[in-house]
Amino acid sequence: MTTNSKFIQNKSLGILGGGQLAKMLSLAAQKMGVFVHIYSESSADPAASTTAFHTKGSLKNSKKIESWSKNLDIITFESEFLEIDKLKLSKHAPNTKSMTILRDRLFQKQILEKFKIPTSPFAEPHKTFTFTKPKVLKRRLFGYDGYGTVICKNKKDYGVFLASDLAVNTWIEEDFIPFKRELAFSIARTESNKFCTLPLVETFQKDSKCLWVKGPIEGEKLEVKLKSLVQKTKKLLTHLNYVGIITFELFETKSGELIVNEVAPRVHNSAHYSIEGLPLSQFDLHILAVFNQKLPTKIKAHKAFAMVNLIGSSKLKPKLSPINSGALHWYGKLDNRPGRKMGHITVLDKTSPQALSLALKAAKDQIL
Amino acid sequence: MTTNSKFIQNKSLGILGGGQLAKMLSLAAQKMGVFVHIYSESSADPAASTTAFHTKGSLKNSKKIESWSKNLDIITFESEFLEIDKLKLSKHAPNTKSMTILRDRLFQKQILEKFKIPTSPFAEPHKTFTFTKPKVLKRRLFGYDGYGTVICKNKKDYGVFLASDLAVNTWIEEDFIPFKRELAFSIARTESNKFCTLPLVETFQKDSKCLWVKGPIEGEKLEVKLKSLVQKTKKLLTHLNYVGIITFELFETKSGELIVNEVAPRVHNSAHYSIEGLPLSQFDLHILAVFNQKLPTKIKAHKAFAMVNLIGSSKLKPKLSPINSGALHWYGKLDNRPGRKMGHITVLDKTSPQALSLALKAAKDQIL
Repeated sequence: MTTNSKFIQNKSLGILGGGQLAKMLSLAAQKMGVFVHIYSESSADPAASTTAFHTKGSLKNSKKIESWSKNLDIITFESEFLEIDKLKLSKHAPNTKSMTILRDRLFQKQILEKFKIPTSPFAEPHKTFTFTKPKVLKRRLFGYDGYGTVICKNKKDYGVFLASDLAVNTWIEEDFIPFKRELAFSIARTESNKFCTLPLVETFQKDSKCLWVKGPIEGEKLEVKLKSLVQKTKKLLTHLNYVGIITFELFETKSGELIVNEVAPRVHNSAHYSIEGLPLSQFDLHILAVFNQKLPTKIKAHKAFAMVNLIGSSKLKPKLSPINSGALHWYGKLDNRPGRKMGHITVLDKTSPQALSLALKAAKDQIL
Repeated sequence: MTTNSKFIQNKSLGILGGGQLAKMLSLAAQKMGVFVHIYSESSADPAASTTAFHTKGSLKNSKKIESWSKNLDIITFESEFLEIDKLKLSKHAPNTKSMTILRDRLFQKQILEKFKIPTSPFAEPHKTFTFTKPKVLKRRLFGYDGYGTVICKNKKDYGVFLASDLAVNTWIEEDFIPFKRELAFSIARTESNKFCTLPLVETFQKDSKCLWVKGPIEGEKLEVKLKSLVQKTKKLLTHLNYVGIITFELFETKSGELIVNEVAPRVHNSAHYSIEGLPLSQFDLHILAVFNQKLPTKIKAHKAFAMVNLIGSSKLKPKLSPINSGALHWYGKLDNRPGRKMGHITVLDKTSPQALSLALKAAKDQIL
């Protein structure tokens, strides 16, 4: 009760980081009457201009971050790679323990195994040095959007990887999974151990970078498997006392099994559709969760939706073409670097393939 | 094309006014990558903290407003009662002529008549001084949410009104229309004379203040009448070269006619549902329109929706109760004055009565 009435008297949320995820969090929080404070490296960062309260500083300046955070009600993070274990922050969510485990692909794998959550077999390359079948090599830390991922299809590739300049003990290796498709779901948890699970979606990656998402993905057999998986992930989140939203990226194997590929302990690209596709978005839910508000027990998704990323290229000149039954999000990055996520488009329709086809067309229309 | 590519290079939008309408406009514009500049009287205004670019100043300080507006790409207005005819603003939308006519209830009535848009019979009280049937007296300027409205059911009431201290020549009088229900629709127009019409909704007022909205309202007979009405309003908007979104508040008379009650030349409470109920909200459409972007030709509304206002009272202590398939908007006003609009709730459902019943319950749950 106290939390609640304080909340409406304009509680303050600190967000560490200033990219598009921080921006979308900021806009969602302000919709609910929360004052948002952004700490980021540049006033040109997408989130920096979204609030009257921006602090410019290095993400490595612990003292400055600690002093910034002091008078704020709660701090949350745009990225799992901020080394929050090195910071003395009072109130923050998710907690340091969760972040330290989940941001490290080795520790992440180990805890998934511990909770019997299906995931691909893995090892540490400096302990194996052998090649028996195709592998995916991943940096334990700081990998994203395909950066820090190497696929070794044969012994020769693996030899090249091992011989490279890399400190192989900072990587893990996983069996390459020939999947039918990639899926994902997000789940929000509060400190009171309440959950809100978002619909299952299909995600399509090229070179490990998300190009599009569509959903909701339904199917009787799938639902049984998903239910069991969600139950296990809830146990994991309870164990970690994880607070906020988290995304589980999945492989649907050729035999129809669901196995967890990666875990993202934050708001995630695969759930951007939720801004238009659900009455409460992943950003809303993350904010409600970190303030330990009650979560809705049932969120009805729009019948079908699709989200397409607008990836930077020398050709990309979005012209804000009209999108029937859809919306353009433009992050406002000053620099259009090839491969960079510059914005996204979400389209609602009667079926998800229809929505995807319209969204892909709309994305194409944005390029002059 | 030029406009378009400039737009994405972070065009700037100036909003004159800092209340909840300005706040929702600001959040929508930033979603699309627009930099928002707010000019308002206090840094505690709901919109003031939504951007790094807030200027505090009196709305009567023309010089300050003019200087503020100079380097911005376009200026828009939260309220029709800002006396923009007294300002030298370069680029702004809607234009001064539209605002000057539409903000004045007498001029508004006259132009509706000119365009054969059905509206209730009206007169100027200081020219009639007679009572033959129930009348609604309205201030020509500055009326809103029931402020500046007096209903005279009989000769005695009318006598009291005339005898009061009021300058009766600043009022107009209208025949009291015994309506079946109140309806509304909004329509966005660009300078290129493109339109986007939002669905018809039912609005419920108590003491002239909006309590709830539900929709979409459909019906064969209604659609024919609406189509003809929309056509006439489009002609009016083209004549005025009106740019932006505008709302027409309607009476559905007991015989099933649609007549225009009032016109609001701005974003409007009756279309707040559009944030969750449509993929592009009234705020998005207003922004696209003022930047002369193309508008979507077809916006599919959610199957059914309802919006309930959270009106200030000594009891109002929103606790952000979870809302299944809905969202709470909290404007962040520091002062909870009885009768003041403090926030709203939108709920999506299969039918609009169901959505309304859930939204009314959710609104009740917000009061401890």
